[in-house]
Amino acid sequence: MKLLRFGEVGFEKPGIEDEGGIRYDVSGFGEDYDENFFESEGVNRLKSWFAIHKNSCPRVMSSLRLGPPLKRPSKIICVGLNYREHAIESGMKIPKEPILFYKATSAICGPNDPLELPKASVKTDWEVELAVVIAKKTKYATPLNAMQNVAGYLLHNDYSERAFQLEHGGQWLKGKSSDSFAPSGPFLVTKDEITDPHNLKMWLDVNGKRMQESSTSDLIFNIPYLIAYISKYMSLLPGDIISTGTPAGVGMGLKPPRYLKSGDVVELGINGLGSSKQKVIAYSD
Amino acid sequence: MKLLRFGEVGFEKPGIEDEGGIRYDVSGFGEDYDENFFESEGVNRLKSWFAIHKNSCPRVMSSLRLGPPLKRPSKIICVGLNYREHAIESGMKIPKEPILFYKATSAICGPNDPLELPKASVKTDWEVELAVVIAKKTKYATPLNAMQNVAGYLLHNDYSERAFQLEHGGQWLKGKSSDSFAPSGPFLVTKDEITDPHNLKMWLDVNGKRMQESSTSDLIFNIPYLIAYISKYMSLLPGDIISTGTPAGVGMGLKPPRYLKSGDVVELGINGLGSSKQKVIAYSD
Repeated sequence: MKLLRFGEVGFEKPGIEDEGGIRYDVSGFGEDYDENFFESEGVNRLKSWFAIHKNSCPRVMSSLRLGPPLKRPSKIICVGLNYREHAIESGMKIPKEPILFYKATSAICGPNDPLELPKASVKTDWEVELAVVIAKKTKYATPLNAMQNVAGYLLHNDYSERAFQLEHGGQWLKGKSSDSFAPSGPFLVTKDEITDPHNLKMWLDVNGKRMQESSTSDLIFNIPYLIAYISKYMSLLPGDIISTGTPAGVGMGLKPPRYLKSGDVVELGINGLGSSKQKVIAYSD
Repeated sequence: MKLLRFGEVGFEKPGIEDEGGIRYDVSGFGEDYDENFFESEGVNRLKSWFAIHKNSCPRVMSSLRLGPPLKRPSKIICVGLNYREHAIESGMKIPKEPILFYKATSAICGPNDPLELPKASVKTDWEVELAVVIAKKTKYATPLNAMQNVAGYLLHNDYSERAFQLEHGGQWLKGKSSDSFAPSGPFLVTKDEITDPHNLKMWLDVNGKRMQESSTSDLIFNIPYLIAYISKYMSLLPGDIISTGTPAGVGMGLKPPRYLKSGDVVELGINGLGSSKQKVIAYSD
């Protein structure tokens, strides 16, 4: 099942995309895709409901804006340097254990919303990533049981302002949390539809030129390992997002580096999880 | 006005403590202390409502558990090394600009809930802090206008597992985010009740012995500066928490270091913001 949300910012409604690519408004189900939904087996309940009510659900016009597939998760935990070549291009060591950082949930936006450069940004960069959505409260999971706690997957662009991240002192979150820095979706694909999340091709283009091309088969720390690892340090709640890291090909790694400017267009995708497209715009008051 | 929440975990109701220390159940107002409440001028609306309905509000028995004064803020942004002597005792440099890190909101608990040591914890430490609560969406504030965006203040113990924070690779959030690591309250004190938030005495005792004693007058970066600074990097939402840093006297800074163990009792307070008390317990499955 593919879960999506559509409509204007802050007024999104829940929807479903079926196997044929047709989108349905499922507001009739009476719930949004939030912590309560996942906690209460929402995916299974919605699947049963949709099987009965599909024909009476309004269609969603393809012209409507897509919002982020999740309504305000409690947190986004990102994994740093989780692809070998990306660690090397960043001039950093291959990590011995996962590097975790936080991205403010206020950065979440729809998959095709514009990327607004922060005021004074000079080094805004792209990062195509596979994101994992948690199905239920997870604390001290083990790699063996961790996948039971996954609701599904989504495409995420972990936009990063490298000067904010690396040159302003302290921790990385400064460069990760600006508004529109977390375009998510187009949809959350439920776990049952992805046979092997560790074998998905991923790509990212800037102005039509291929910049990142890799596969989740190259992850240093895989999904069950990450869930077990993170859940030693904090509780993951239903609907929480783990963004598993980006492969080589970011702007910071180019010689000379190449950062985003107003007018650039970024497109990205992961096999089975769809694609998204962000037009870069300057900050305006 | 002093806003509090009381009742069992996950089922807290909103309350008010009046000037005489009497607590009232204000569930009749029909709102909880969350993002919507602050965004819609909830503090002023509640004040007007309470002036009329005080006599019909049920009293809250002092035996009832206090919950955290805020219902699930979108984020807790903490400031590192914001007291000179604490930076020195930590063996770190005085920062030239604020060091920011994140604490998972799933760590928030009531002011007197037990501190549960995480599994495998060996270096759990205390940190009394003044926390600031944001009143409305804040982006690119200036030090001159930032205080308009403050709803109030609360007492916060920024518990920290130093091995997780500093010895497990990468960023600090690993040591800051365990369940029960953010006891908050007893109450949120609205801004109008605190004449000068930069002149509040603060203290923390372990087993009755004074460990931290300082004043917010020693903050390196003050509250309006912090709000302006953080809001360059991310939007602060109504109800979000900024924890402004801890003074000298943490366990890590002692020679030899002293960390918490099951049975210890931590008490802390800030003038005007009340006090809290956490009993340390071992992790249990």
